[in-house]
Amino acid sequence: LASQDIILSLLGSGEWVSGEEMAGRLSISRAAVWKQIQILRKRGYDIASSTRKGYRLASGPDLLHPDRILGCLKTKWMGRSLNLFDSVTSTNAVALSMAEESPHGAVILAETQSEGRGRLSRPWASPAGGIWMSIILKPQMPLSHVSRINMALSVALCRSISAVAGLQAAIKWPNDILIGERDEEGNWDGKERKVCGILTEMKAEVDRLDYVVVGLGINANVDLSAFPEEWNATSLAKEAGHPVPRADLICRILEEAELACEKAAGSAEDFQDIYQEWRSHSATLNRWVRISSADGEMMGMAADLDFDGALILELEGGGRSRILAGDCIHLRPCLHREAA
Amino acid sequence: LASQDIILSLLGSGEWVSGEEMAGRLSISRAAVWKQIQILRKRGYDIASSTRKGYRLASGPDLLHPDRILGCLKTKWMGRSLNLFDSVTSTNAVALSMAEESPHGAVILAETQSEGRGRLSRPWASPAGGIWMSIILKPQMPLSHVSRINMALSVALCRSISAVAGLQAAIKWPNDILIGERDEEGNWDGKERKVCGILTEMKAEVDRLDYVVVGLGINANVDLSAFPEEWNATSLAKEAGHPVPRADLICRILEEAELACEKAAGSAEDFQDIYQEWRSHSATLNRWVRISSADGEMMGMAADLDFDGALILELEGGGRSRILAGDCIHLRPCLHREAA
Repeated sequence: LASQDIILSLLGSGEWVSGEEMAGRLSISRAAVWKQIQILRKRGYDIASSTRKGYRLASGPDLLHPDRILGCLKTKWMGRSLNLFDSVTSTNAVALSMAEESPHGAVILAETQSEGRGRLSRPWASPAGGIWMSIILKPQMPLSHVSRINMALSVALCRSISAVAGLQAAIKWPNDILIGERDEEGNWDGKERKVCGILTEMKAEVDRLDYVVVGLGINANVDLSAFPEEWNATSLAKEAGHPVPRADLICRILEEAELACEKAAGSAEDFQDIYQEWRSHSATLNRWVRISSADGEMMGMAADLDFDGALILELEGGGRSRILAGDCIHLRPCLHREAA
Repeated sequence: LASQDIILSLLGSGEWVSGEEMAGRLSISRAAVWKQIQILRKRGYDIASSTRKGYRLASGPDLLHPDRILGCLKTKWMGRSLNLFDSVTSTNAVALSMAEESPHGAVILAETQSEGRGRLSRPWASPAGGIWMSIILKPQMPLSHVSRINMALSVALCRSISAVAGLQAAIKWPNDILIGERDEEGNWDGKERKVCGILTEMKAEVDRLDYVVVGLGINANVDLSAFPEEWNATSLAKEAGHPVPRADLICRILEEAELACEKAAGSAEDFQDIYQEWRSHSATLNRWVRISSADGEMMGMAADLDFDGALILELEGGGRSRILAGDCIHLRPCLHREAA
């Protein structure tokens, strides 16, 4: 580790640390500590100094640093192994390649992705300012419960976005998080925009889950000007009116994800409240939707969401269909009235 | 390619090839062709020669060669991409790492494996003389149908072992192939020994199968002296009384596997005859067994085998249990009488 990194990790708690203590830890002079602090300030770290108390990290630039995240992280196992990269092809690809040797809850983070991807290998824009994170999970659960992981992470994201950015997040089935507003009757206003996507991948034997990799792509403070309008994307910064503290959001997500994943790996009873919360945060339920899946295209009313994550579609032509995953387009009420 | 490899591929069909033709293809003299043939003979290839007809490959040493396999292979897509290695850690590990870029039906073969593995990452002995082969499949099927691949390969192995080695093979649930004999009433004599194991691994999204890797470990002509008695292993060579032609067996397996996998990826009706054949070749059905699975240990009668590969166990204490996969020990009738 470079001296600056050691100083950053010492300051990671946000408490005052004396120059003498830092000098001792680094085996350098107090003048040399001062010089390193100046370099860190030039790099964007806001470091307060006091002749009596020493130094304190007031705020950092919007760059991620493992020590800062680990310094604020209150989890038992989630994110305890944290790997931060400047740029990777895709954090899911890196996580899949590292999964065999990684512990349960290991996290891969990158400032940018050159080949970020979403469901069905579709490209995913990943500029600086976002949170591009993959979590390696090795839960003891049957293969058929994997959709619970997706549901648990959706709930964890909604809770964290609400707590850290003060925004109301909703879940677009099957794997997107939207920011939007409801009217007095609790109906979405139809102007929700996508702020996050979840990509759950797994490696398994016929009867045994080896590991799951959950990729989260969050448009935290990204510059939206490069996103085409038809992507219907927004950022947390735009919705909140100010940049969100990424490290804090990451910590909160990992804390909520630990709780939710433990419930997902438990009994049906354990998972019950995650399921209820997932269902109640749905932006899809009771909406007219068009679904494309391996079985073809269908239009209808999203009548229910099952305990295993499946969407129950009341078909336009009558009858019901149960769909585990697919592309979902929310139809605007007026558009549907025209079509109907 | 070296001249010898080109000559081998020209001779691969087993037909006569004139020295003149080979000299032309290689742009060398007929005398130089003769010299290369001598080298091949020293390496163990039995090459007949005739002044009138040229050269013919009568038989090769028991070494695998892609050209020889491709020369005899009658498949549309299975094994058309063939990768032969002298030694690898495990063909499944190599196949998993190559799967993304490989075509449907690509095959990885190795003369030996240093870290061969079976179900639940257990070690698998893989000395020279065996067939250590992994097949990369990218079938269009729901995740829940993956067990069909395991069943299809089991049937393909039984058919191939019967056709090439003249031996009656049986399927020990869930993923082993045994060689044994039945008495007049159709009951197994209890002396069956394991000759092959199947390891099916997959990579998937929640709703989409990305690829399946099926590893086949076949004790074809291996030296059994290094296998501890308690493994209850045998080889095709020991059972048949002579070495089996590995290249012929590989071709047959790939041909049968192509047919069976196409049926597995089809409708329930398409898969019906593979299921029936899989069930009828079972060495487990109607036997007393002890099963260890994620749900614990159970003892009972193997009463049925379901269409999805599950074992229906009539429990010793009453009731039935449905098990998708687990460790299965066939109890000898006398042992069970003692226990009961």
